[in-house]
Amino acid sequence: MTLHFNILKKDSATKARLGRLITAHGAVETPAFMPVGTQGTVKAVLPRDLKELGCQILLGNTYHLYLRPGAELVRKLGGLHGFMAWDGPILTDSGGYQVFSLAAMRTVSDEGVRFQSHLDGSTHLLTPEKVMEIQEALGSDIAMVLDECVPHDAQRTYVQMSTERTVRWAERCLRVRRKEDQLVFGIIQGGMFEELRQWCVSEMQALSFDGYAVGGLGVGEGEALLQSIGSFTAELLPEDRPRYLMGVGRPEDIVSAVRAGFDLFDCVIPTRNARNGTLFTSQGKLSIKRAEFTGDPRPLDPDCGCYCCRNFSRAYLRHLYLAGEILSAQLNSLHNLYFYHRLMERCREAIREGRWEDGVSLPGIEGDRKDTFIQEES
Amino acid sequence: MTLHFNILKKDSATKARLGRLITAHGAVETPAFMPVGTQGTVKAVLPRDLKELGCQILLGNTYHLYLRPGAELVRKLGGLHGFMAWDGPILTDSGGYQVFSLAAMRTVSDEGVRFQSHLDGSTHLLTPEKVMEIQEALGSDIAMVLDECVPHDAQRTYVQMSTERTVRWAERCLRVRRKEDQLVFGIIQGGMFEELRQWCVSEMQALSFDGYAVGGLGVGEGEALLQSIGSFTAELLPEDRPRYLMGVGRPEDIVSAVRAGFDLFDCVIPTRNARNGTLFTSQGKLSIKRAEFTGDPRPLDPDCGCYCCRNFSRAYLRHLYLAGEILSAQLNSLHNLYFYHRLMERCREAIREGRWEDGVSLPGIEGDRKDTFIQEES
Repeated sequence: MTLHFNILKKDSATKARLGRLITAHGAVETPAFMPVGTQGTVKAVLPRDLKELGCQILLGNTYHLYLRPGAELVRKLGGLHGFMAWDGPILTDSGGYQVFSLAAMRTVSDEGVRFQSHLDGSTHLLTPEKVMEIQEALGSDIAMVLDECVPHDAQRTYVQMSTERTVRWAERCLRVRRKEDQLVFGIIQGGMFEELRQWCVSEMQALSFDGYAVGGLGVGEGEALLQSIGSFTAELLPEDRPRYLMGVGRPEDIVSAVRAGFDLFDCVIPTRNARNGTLFTSQGKLSIKRAEFTGDPRPLDPDCGCYCCRNFSRAYLRHLYLAGEILSAQLNSLHNLYFYHRLMERCREAIREGRWEDGVSLPGIEGDRKDTFIQEES
Repeated sequence: MTLHFNILKKDSATKARLGRLITAHGAVETPAFMPVGTQGTVKAVLPRDLKELGCQILLGNTYHLYLRPGAELVRKLGGLHGFMAWDGPILTDSGGYQVFSLAAMRTVSDEGVRFQSHLDGSTHLLTPEKVMEIQEALGSDIAMVLDECVPHDAQRTYVQMSTERTVRWAERCLRVRRKEDQLVFGIIQGGMFEELRQWCVSEMQALSFDGYAVGGLGVGEGEALLQSIGSFTAELLPEDRPRYLMGVGRPEDIVSAVRAGFDLFDCVIPTRNARNGTLFTSQGKLSIKRAEFTGDPRPLDPDCGCYCCRNFSRAYLRHLYLAGEILSAQLNSLHNLYFYHRLMERCREAIREGRWEDGVSLPGIEGDRKDTFIQEES
């Protein structure tokens, strides 16, 4: 039995669960989406506006904050909560993913990952112990263990060796754990190989983490593999711990993963797309730069209640985008994050009210492909 | 007697006045500062945040909006108020200043100004009639006449010819005036020549505008000329009409100009400086990128009550700036605009409470040079 996670209701038609995750900075109603606050800020959004749009928990990037401004500086300035003025829960990743995607000249060994900073070329070594120390300095509510995220097309022999190392790293992370009120999540790797995923789950479960993340998905493997490996792994994970599908994803991916039993999600898609002028609506995606919106007086989404949709027309948003105005990134980000949070709220409502049992879809998200994922599961 | 402008109190020690300007979209307590909303947005600030920081009236740029997205489009989308979701008063400039500072290959004749767009090189003709039509389409509460803003070091013969043309243009602007509830302000030119300023005031006054602006200052002439020509011209203007010192300026310039009897101001300094990391505080200007702020836990200004100062440290703001985060522009702009609006509020309080009579200075603004301007006037 865990004290920090309660399942309030399980859906009978799917694997979806309604839960409450308790952290040192408050509770999170799950399923929940975590906006990405890469460098100590969710890009272009004030913390008070995050609160207003329904954000419950943020993700902070250990790699970025470690390199700049530095974890000890953040600790002195009140931890990440004080530094960025966010008093709600924060999950920090381990930095592993960024080392493997951003850093130059990385070399992995049992000791850890040696790499060169993408900022100034300086050399650093991240070990399992080090990433836990950094996350303790950042003061996050949930820390992640160091893992290696392998490419989706990696060979089985490499994936096996890497997964075994990820498990050894996880053990070391648990041993250096010092901060009493910081939850620690293990990460399941194993690439596209069910057998390796299964082995990794059993090893990680034996370590009894506060929660379990599934990594190495949403990295180019395609929708079918994302869904099959994702749901396969979710089913193996202990019922009573939160399940976090890392780095996923599009609205439809998230809805599928909620149905498969995942509770937490993070992704840069809503904010990055916003800055690129791609906006989510109940009628699908929309590229605000298109000429058809030149004189369009309608809001982005007539069914949306966000600040952007309550006040501005598509024509205005197109103008801001074409004029290169900062306000374009601000309003688009508010809208896309509101869309994602409203989506999670609708998932929670559907579970709470047993509406998925009646075959109810989430308009604008599932459409024709409703239940596809469920059918593939059976 | 005018119905749209009331002087509530005059300072006895200076020429400063406390007033109320009534527009179709509400009242403005003067002296007031107008943030510049160049392309239909005050850069990096949401309209609701402008309201919160005390903004009463915005300035919109006719030149920019005419070129993109176009005045007729703005009209169809509810005018500039509806387009940018600002329900308070808006003043639009005539576009003249931008034609003379931004556009390529401009030629001035009695007909108007022919120029090439800085965006795409297309050729346009702005006439006095045309700028009034554009401003009518934009639906601003206060329209400005077309004027030529001459360089501060222009020869007297050119300035005289140009000023005479500006007066002829002003007459034509008044003739095409069509929108009943739109105030129209004349612009006083005349360069650095008191005689030409005096002549221009008398000609413009005969046309009985709703208010009078002083143009051609704050364009590199230096503080002494700004103050001497500014106060000289202010004294000539009719008491019962609002006086607007265009494009000025630094906090100390504005305080001096309030003392000289000006009521309205606009300037890009607070927002542009914010994006460049230069911030106004009660202890003077501060460049947030400086190494000394690396670990500084203090707010920008301990005496400031803005959202930025209530929540964030100098260390965090420095980090955001160095990391190139959009939030840097947002928070810095909120702070600088709050500073400017608080400055205007303190000017109004000083007049209301007769505190300038007692020689009270505005801390952080006037300092040692308090009363310099007043002495020069006498």
